[in-house]
Amino acid sequence: MYPFPAGFFAPRNRWYVAARSAEVGRTPLERFILDEPVVFYRTEAGQAVALAGRCPHRGYPLGKGRVDGDAVICGYHGLRFEADGHCSHIPSQATIPPRCQVKAYAVSEQWDWLWIWPGDPECADPALIPDHRALGLTDPHWIKRPPLYWHVEGRYQLLNDNLLDLTHLTVLHADTIGGGDVAATEERHDEGEGWVRSTRWIANAHVTDWVRRSRGIEGPVDREIMLTFAAPGFHFGHDRYFRAGSDPGAATPLLDIRIFHAVTPATRNSCHYFASSAVDPATYELSRSHPPDPGSALKIFTEDVEAIGEIERLLAASGEFEEVPLRADVHGLRGRRLVQAMIRDEALPASAARKSNHARGREPADREAVEVK
Amino acid sequence: MYPFPAGFFAPRNRWYVAARSAEVGRTPLERFILDEPVVFYRTEAGQAVALAGRCPHRGYPLGKGRVDGDAVICGYHGLRFEADGHCSHIPSQATIPPRCQVKAYAVSEQWDWLWIWPGDPECADPALIPDHRALGLTDPHWIKRPPLYWHVEGRYQLLNDNLLDLTHLTVLHADTIGGGDVAATEERHDEGEGWVRSTRWIANAHVTDWVRRSRGIEGPVDREIMLTFAAPGFHFGHDRYFRAGSDPGAATPLLDIRIFHAVTPATRNSCHYFASSAVDPATYELSRSHPPDPGSALKIFTEDVEAIGEIERLLAASGEFEEVPLRADVHGLRGRRLVQAMIRDEALPASAARKSNHARGREPADREAVEVK
Amino acid sequence: MYPFPAGFFAPRNRWYVAARSAEVGRTPLERFILDEPVVFYRTEAGQAVALAGRCPHRGYPLGKGRVDGDAVICGYHGLRFEADGHCSHIPSQATIPPRCQVKAYAVSEQWDWLWIWPGDPECADPALIPDHRALGLTDPHWIKRPPLYWHVEGRYQLLNDNLLDLTHLTVLHADTIGGGDVAATEERHDEGEGWVRSTRWIANAHVTDWVRRSRGIEGPVDREIMLTFAAPGFHFGHDRYFRAGSDPGAATPLLDIRIFHAVTPATRNSCHYFASSAVDPATYELSRSHPPDPGSALKIFTEDVEAIGEIERLLAASGEFEEVPLRADVHGLRGRRLVQAMIRDEALPASAARKSNHARGREPADREAVEVK
Repeated sequence: MYPFPAGFFAPRNRWYVAARSAEVGRTPLERFILDEPVVFYRTEAGQAVALAGRCPHRGYPLGKGRVDGDAVICGYHGLRFEADGHCSHIPSQATIPPRCQVKAYAVSEQWDWLWIWPGDPECADPALIPDHRALGLTDPHWIKRPPLYWHVEGRYQLLNDNLLDLTHLTVLHADTIGGGDVAATEERHDEGEGWVRSTRWIANAHVTDWVRRSRGIEGPVDREIMLTFAAPGFHFGHDRYFRAGSDPGAATPLLDIRIFHAVTPATRNSCHYFASSAVDPATYELSRSHPPDPGSALKIFTEDVEAIGEIERLLAASGEFEEVPLRADVHGLRGRRLVQAMIRDEALPASAARKSNHARGREPADREAVEVK
Repeated sequence: MYPFPAGFFAPRNRWYVAARSAEVGRTPLERFILDEPVVFYRTEAGQAVALAGRCPHRGYPLGKGRVDGDAVICGYHGLRFEADGHCSHIPSQATIPPRCQVKAYAVSEQWDWLWIWPGDPECADPALIPDHRALGLTDPHWIKRPPLYWHVEGRYQLLNDNLLDLTHLTVLHADTIGGGDVAATEERHDEGEGWVRSTRWIANAHVTDWVRRSRGIEGPVDREIMLTFAAPGFHFGHDRYFRAGSDPGAATPLLDIRIFHAVTPATRNSCHYFASSAVDPATYELSRSHPPDPGSALKIFTEDVEAIGEIERLLAASGEFEEVPLRADVHGLRGRRLVQAMIRDEALPASAARKSNHARGREPADREAVEVK
Repeated sequence: MYPFPAGFFAPRNRWYVAARSAEVGRTPLERFILDEPVVFYRTEAGQAVALAGRCPHRGYPLGKGRVDGDAVICGYHGLRFEADGHCSHIPSQATIPPRCQVKAYAVSEQWDWLWIWPGDPECADPALIPDHRALGLTDPHWIKRPPLYWHVEGRYQLLNDNLLDLTHLTVLHADTIGGGDVAATEERHDEGEGWVRSTRWIANAHVTDWVRRSRGIEGPVDREIMLTFAAPGFHFGHDRYFRAGSDPGAATPLLDIRIFHAVTPATRNSCHYFASSAVDPATYELSRSHPPDPGSALKIFTEDVEAIGEIERLLAASGEFEEVPLRADVHGLRGRRLVQAMIRDEALPASAARKSNHARGREPADREAVEVK
């Protein structure tokens, strides 16, 4: 399915962001993840739980049930499922049939969001999640924005594609963050196992009214835009604004902001989108704007969300689509190939085992840490 | 199609409730029955008529036409169809082509609702309809509630399944009629040709606030719940509340209520649901509540209607489903098998003829009459 | 697909009305034409342009972009497409890949609407469009109504069928233009290459309240109704009302009105409908009503639009349909065959070339001109 070959959907043995922490509590939350209903809740001790969201008895959504102790109770006939997915009580009988259980997803709550591993829980090594400390998300001194969330009416790869080609900034986001000619600026491409990174240095860029107003920065500026895609659905960026003509090695940036995007397949034609940011408190101007004005950032993300919906609308109405790749897509196509390779690998035997061998030290978040600190 | 094997939908040579009497009048009513549009109206003499709801000329819905005399006139080109389905007038020509006719469904109006036989009208013996006198629906002394109606966004068998397994009462209807542990109570199963019956005796049951308030009964009570499924879509129940410790053979019940549910396939993924009840006037407390408070009963039915919609929603989103049967499903599976056998029989040659041989005396309503009077 | 054989949709190498002139301006307009998204706009000089409505780069709708000079700029990454469909600018690179272009549709703006040729632009001879001068649309003395527009939720041929069988006037439009028994009146059928015409002379017809009120005509009248279908989607009519008993060759009509209907496939299950009219100023009564009361005419068209939607609704719910043809359909079936033959011809080799040989002099509009002037 576009933009992948027929039959390719999404890799299962990978971490994805499933929810914001604040969304998961003692009331069940249903969310589709990779085309399957999942129910999320917290145990009495506050531990987040994700179970297959359909009661195996008669198919009633567990998301419409209730939480009791550490279990979720189906709202139809009262079957009780514990946090590990085993059924501990059936009101109408004393014995539990062996098949009467639901899958318990591996989850890992880090910072303000919850990661899920839709595939084999045995392979779900939390060390495979990008290191949140290195990302700047766990440093109490940084000014963080609580994650925003959108349900996007478009297949997830369209949103990955969006983030992998920042030449859209100048056009789609012309009124907000589009200052400086991103499209005309040479892009540096780096990559490693499971990730790709794009870096641009835009000298002497003008500053949009939006940046001036919401971030308190006057132009012209030199601007570095760096965005790393840790396939299949996490993007972490690093934007720095300098007074034009500064030496980036020596000057303090006017603004040093980390941006985080998480993209998770919901169904085949829709996805979840989480976005957040963190700012180095040492960069002064930001304190005037961040995080006081979430509405302002909302506009940018909404532009992307609507664009994805528009592309999906035409795909739905008008069938498959043969795109024309441009030079600006070289980076994005490499990112897309990473995802595609992950899907293909899972179709091969013993793929899960291989996946669990990913050493933590080779993950991009750590490299990021090395490079930016 | 779940819960039946692929290709199984619904038996056609059977009676189903199609409408409440009050819904059928001199304005055409369109309703889908077993995936076909049907138009309902009354003749000048008040006779209910059901015709195929699509004009054979150009496919305009007859339900958007108008009734004139005993006929319905298509609102597009004015073709006139009499109550037997033959075309009696075409404004633009004098002769009527032989194929220009619509199917006239066999119908039988009994009490406050209209039964329809979607299959071969030749086989439609009204004696195959459960005996309404025996059911208590035609006794003028009984206090009856006019039937309620819902269009349910779920396949009909999900609703049959719901009614065939009352262990859901304690959970889904915990706030209303869920008093007493139905799930923990042994169920007696009876069956005959075309019907199955479940009976439970719940001793010393607590009474919910809802029952106390709406039915004027204080607990604890002994309670008998009996529900007979006359396949493919009619359920008649008999609930009796006794003061706890009474001898059911001798004591007058605190409440003696008959409950009626009719389930009719609309499309493959939706159904019609009709419900009503009748109460023995000799049971005193009821007079305080029945039928003055329909809103109260509405809540119970709406809980079921919403539950069916939720299951259908997951089936639609998440493909077929392999259920885990429990002991409490033994009764329901027998009921489901009845429906499945009816569908299978119709695929065999000469099935219609066999069906018309059902002798009235072997039908469950009469057995009920024998047993409860 | 009903009413055509499976696989038949619509002829592409034909002219269709795509938009009202007033709809096309300096803001892009998206409209589906024969199941493909098309974007319409005007150049600085006011020339109407129609381009394939999907950016070939990443599938974003050009209808969501903006017009700049004579080009449309994609709102996602800023690709610029000129009026001939070639890409003249890609912000992120200097060279334009050969495949990076969109189809430019042949269009022809005549009177107040825009014609489009969905097929091969090479074959798009404007002379194949019915002659608007002959139709009375370009005569400044005639009183014309600006075209009305509806998006119809039904396949286009249902609307063609509607217009090809006027026996529906007496029924569907009983309250408006249904006066006089159209259905009982003999129909004259004429046809030529690509067109069919129906003519009826209704003597001594009563006049509906609606005609009396909105057109200032008192009955009884003699009425001539003529409607020509220039396949695949244009109908032009000529209605004349005479005082009953007049000699139509000598008398001045009470009203002489030309009616125009354009039907264009949008998707497989929806279409565009444009309607307008023009009146001979010499016919006195009309000046009292035309065009001051568009709401009044709106009712008639809305009746048709809703009827088509109702038929499509049943086709969607209830599968294919085997219609029963009547005598009144002889004319319509000939019209339908014209469309069907056009579709079939396009499946043959070298069909486009053949189409461009249609000589202008053999088109119906000219014959109409000969006959009615």
